[in-house]
Amino acid sequence: MTTPLDIIKPAVRALRAYTLSPHRASVKINQNENPWDAPAQIKEEVLRCFAARKWSRYPDFVPVSLHERLAGFAGWKADGIIAGNGSNELIQALLMVSMGPGKRVMISEPTFALYRQVATVLGGEVVTVLLTPELTYDVAALLKTIEETNPDVTIICSPNNPTGCVIHATDLRKLLGASRGLVVIDEAYHEFSQQSVVPLLNEHENLIVLRTFSKAMAFAALRVGYLLAAPELVTEIRKAVLPYNLNAFSQIAAEVAIERYEALLGPTVSAIIAERERLYREISQIRGLAPVLSKGNFMVVKTDMDPRQIFEGLLQRDILVRDVSGYPMLREYFRFSVGTPEENDRLLRALNEIAG
Amino acid sequence: MTTPLDIIKPAVRALRAYTLSPHRASVKINQNENPWDAPAQIKEEVLRCFAARKWSRYPDFVPVSLHERLAGFAGWKADGIIAGNGSNELIQALLMVSMGPGKRVMISEPTFALYRQVATVLGGEVVTVLLTPELTYDVAALLKTIEETNPDVTIICSPNNPTGCVIHATDLRKLLGASRGLVVIDEAYHEFSQQSVVPLLNEHENLIVLRTFSKAMAFAALRVGYLLAAPELVTEIRKAVLPYNLNAFSQIAAEVAIERYEALLGPTVSAIIAERERLYREISQIRGLAPVLSKGNFMVVKTDMDPRQIFEGLLQRDILVRDVSGYPMLREYFRFSVGTPEENDRLLRALNEIAG
Repeated sequence: MTTPLDIIKPAVRALRAYTLSPHRASVKINQNENPWDAPAQIKEEVLRCFAARKWSRYPDFVPVSLHERLAGFAGWKADGIIAGNGSNELIQALLMVSMGPGKRVMISEPTFALYRQVATVLGGEVVTVLLTPELTYDVAALLKTIEETNPDVTIICSPNNPTGCVIHATDLRKLLGASRGLVVIDEAYHEFSQQSVVPLLNEHENLIVLRTFSKAMAFAALRVGYLLAAPELVTEIRKAVLPYNLNAFSQIAAEVAIERYEALLGPTVSAIIAERERLYREISQIRGLAPVLSKGNFMVVKTDMDPRQIFEGLLQRDILVRDVSGYPMLREYFRFSVGTPEENDRLLRALNEIAG
Repeated sequence: MTTPLDIIKPAVRALRAYTLSPHRASVKINQNENPWDAPAQIKEEVLRCFAARKWSRYPDFVPVSLHERLAGFAGWKADGIIAGNGSNELIQALLMVSMGPGKRVMISEPTFALYRQVATVLGGEVVTVLLTPELTYDVAALLKTIEETNPDVTIICSPNNPTGCVIHATDLRKLLGASRGLVVIDEAYHEFSQQSVVPLLNEHENLIVLRTFSKAMAFAALRVGYLLAAPELVTEIRKAVLPYNLNAFSQIAAEVAIERYEALLGPTVSAIIAERERLYREISQIRGLAPVLSKGNFMVVKTDMDPRQIFEGLLQRDILVRDVSGYPMLREYFRFSVGTPEENDRLLRALNEIAG
């Protein structure tokens, strides 16, 4: 007896849905968001522009004007850029045009869970390389696995969510040179590391860079991401991007944010970096806690206690962090994102109470 | 010598990108949009709500509150609904969890070009059944092809873009009964036909219905669509839907539109239906033009002239229609969407000048 579910591919049926615990708290530091709202001046300008537009009319078929601004902002060619409904949509599009039976994606774990999820749905095989015990990229192991398995696509998150390590340009050059496939660097958090691999696009036509407006740009609600790569590759990836993928509101908002970045958003990034350094120093002083140096706006902390006890203790104090103890290598860790100075003070007080 | 483009699947490389001619005109009736803007009361309420929200925070992981409102609005279970970034995203998700080598999608052509595009990118084989010479669904041929090719997914657009024909409930029941695969009814234009197949969801667990806010709901700029199906099927399709796929602005907007639909949007739908009937009658009177009865907010018209001459003649008069002469069976046709009464008067005058 067949059922409609038989039409679903076995690899999908076997997959557990990607979910998020539905907890709420007034100090919400579980999703690596910018703790400050988008600046009022940006919000007002976007709302004013969008009120004047007809909502019944489709967005641009291709958001050319946004692509041009992104080109200037990121330092790359407009015809080598695709803006999307979050960078997740673009990694999905890339895997759609490249994955299938017999195709392979290499990732380094622990990392952002979505890479594995999307590759699996699309019928690709996922090859994993673990981070070093210090939770940094194991470049030797990555090179060895490239040689042994010849992955079609390698995805590296840098700074890495959830551990905060980065891939250095020298190491990336080695991976790009060794790889016959594509190498994706997800730069969702690059602003907090004050470095970028975008300049390498000029030398390496198998490099793809992803960026997002959800973190430093304070637009998580709006879902804007972009992909940078050689124009010939972008032409192919675009075939899997749905027309009108970026709604007109987010498109306008992204243009305004780019224009105001330096004056209005840059200072929040500097403040977050300073707070990250302060949190690292202060958490290092708490008995039983060992924070891991991070180049993102978040940090994992190793704990002597069961990390779920920390999670629960913080939640009781109205602070929501991320339980990452289910990730490979992170059984003894929890993750928090850097909040406002006041939120960070509350976190430090609470950690002292719970672990101290 | 390998290049990064070798990683792209051959079926994708062979595909021509889906594009749209970049013409502009003051009477824009080429995209089946609602010719009236979203009502001012709706726009104001949405803008006010969204101004008060933090843009730096992610949308709901699953937009539960919107799903509940959609359930009441459409008459189906909330756990059998997925809201998406346009209904295109949902057809893509459905094909992602079901397509692959050896899998087959059946469509009836001419129809919305995206079904073929997405199925091809995902490695599915596309089986085509033509409409009858009268441009209606050829149910006998569809049944025969189901029996012969056993498609995993059948997609029927009803009312069909671009021809306006609908699949009747009796015929759909036959297709659902004969098919061992899933049957998708894309109801993007159902409001203009004043009928829906949603009640059949209760009897047929292989039925999937797609809806959009881009047409009757006057929200093309915002990209909101939704999918209705049996909850077990929705659980599987959701695995291919990216988290936070629907931005928070569009989510709020959709909720407000549902609340105000009857009072504010319903009347524009009635006006569009009345104008469609008037246009049909009046174009029938123009020598050399034969409009085709349509249940959508658009219509194809057969012409003795080269339809591209009509397209150009209208464009010279600042009216933009859709050149559909490249679609199967439509070499002698053009399509227009129903505009405001004033826009429709201009269209009629222009057609009289060009064809008369």
